[in-house]
Amino acid sequence: MALPVKPSPWSSKSIQGVLLDISGVLYNNTEDDVGVAIDGSVEAVERLRKSGLPVRFCTNETQCTREQLVRKLSRLGFTLGVSEVFPPAPAVCQILKERNLRPFTVIHPSCDPEFADIDQNDPNCVVLGDAAKYFTFEKVNKAFQTLMSLEKPVLISMGQGKYYKEAGGLKLDVGAYMKALEYACDVKAEIVGKPSPSFFNAVLKDMGVDASNAVMIGDDIVNDVGGAQACGMKGIQVRTGKFRPSDENHPTVKPDSYVDNLAAGVDLLLQNR
Amino acid sequence: MALPVKPSPWSSKSIQGVLLDISGVLYNNTEDDVGVAIDGSVEAVERLRKSGLPVRFCTNETQCTREQLVRKLSRLGFTLGVSEVFPPAPAVCQILKERNLRPFTVIHPSCDPEFADIDQNDPNCVVLGDAAKYFTFEKVNKAFQTLMSLEKPVLISMGQGKYYKEAGGLKLDVGAYMKALEYACDVKAEIVGKPSPSFFNAVLKDMGVDASNAVMIGDDIVNDVGGAQACGMKGIQVRTGKFRPSDENHPTVKPDSYVDNLAAGVDLLLQNR
Repeated sequence: MALPVKPSPWSSKSIQGVLLDISGVLYNNTEDDVGVAIDGSVEAVERLRKSGLPVRFCTNETQCTREQLVRKLSRLGFTLGVSEVFPPAPAVCQILKERNLRPFTVIHPSCDPEFADIDQNDPNCVVLGDAAKYFTFEKVNKAFQTLMSLEKPVLISMGQGKYYKEAGGLKLDVGAYMKALEYACDVKAEIVGKPSPSFFNAVLKDMGVDASNAVMIGDDIVNDVGGAQACGMKGIQVRTGKFRPSDENHPTVKPDSYVDNLAAGVDLLLQNR
Repeated sequence: MALPVKPSPWSSKSIQGVLLDISGVLYNNTEDDVGVAIDGSVEAVERLRKSGLPVRFCTNETQCTREQLVRKLSRLGFTLGVSEVFPPAPAVCQILKERNLRPFTVIHPSCDPEFADIDQNDPNCVVLGDAAKYFTFEKVNKAFQTLMSLEKPVLISMGQGKYYKEAGGLKLDVGAYMKALEYACDVKAEIVGKPSPSFFNAVLKDMGVDASNAVMIGDDIVNDVGGAQACGMKGIQVRTGKFRPSDENHPTVKPDSYVDNLAAGVDLLLQNR
């Protein structure tokens, strides 16, 4: 087993671009789905923008469209444009078109509009998102039957998250259902979203910044921090959102830095600049 | 990777005890849950009994109690006693009592009576069965939250089947949900049922037959055939139930024999006796 290597000291001076996770970093979910901004995060994003560093919002959010997400964050006080937000659904649609794939989707209904111009008749693949309560047995079993009916089953998963935190407690994420189908059908899912290198690289390309000069700030030790590091970026974990103290003893991932929240992360990046 | 080894020729003369899987071997499920006996299976069980060979019914069935299962099979023409049927639930209850475990159960409501005398307050473990449509997101997420709340999470799964065949098509089995929770919670499930060696050994002990003199006949290449072989028994796969032609090229399991159905399996066992 690969033991985590203590990251080398690094200087924030080298950073020329910043990738931010959204849920658990900018805001926390609430029961009413309105969300609540995490203390200091609104100002932290503003300070980053004023510093001139390019910022992209890199999320595995699949419970809404980009437009809905921007509106939600705007109501919480954040300023961002749709083109700065990178969720998995548009990347998946591009793959589906390139490969002539017609998906049976197990996704949250709020994400349906992202797939509006995709042919979903006579499916020849399965696309999973964070369907939450729509992960009914009927739906998951239909996805299973679809995969089993295909000579070369294709399973695309928008992220591989294990769980996330909501006001009502921890909630199972898409990764769990991805594993269920991988096991039942003897297939390996194609991950679109964090921590997939192709997903991170598309964001870096959009920013025009090399991985070695970019940093990802997130609350997910594996998908944000580990994924970014595997691409050659720095990875900072915030102690908000789904962070758990046991993350600091993670067997394989050691963040380049820990910070208490996004505000402290931005302090770290902007110090000495 | 371990390549399958072609089993040595064997003689049915050495067999002193027979373990039979139930679903897909004795009968097939139907939409109305009545089931339909597989051609020749009723007579095959009768011939086995008349031969004097002890027979046990070794099943991962968790959608009903032993009594309900015996009644169902009896309506289809089979003669068997409750004490000859070995499903996982009674074995799980014994484990729960021995280890002072109080389960949060995700099981089919019809299986609830098997857990009637088990304390289920303030759960300190999770027990999964084939809950079928009762694998709702709410229920699976509650199991997940229960495991995440425990310092030493205990996940007990009644079998690890991938899927089974019903009149409506293939249906996801408990193993898929076991894998989902294993992944989300970073735990390893304890399997009670086939292919667990302790489960097979309990049946062999009840028969008073050594593994080397016993044979398992089932439709599941991994859980019936592979599990039995791993215990030192012979394993015969029937081409009924969930059997799929690709099973005959299984990467790790090679049955000692294939037969078209249980009747042919009994022919094979009783020839030359």
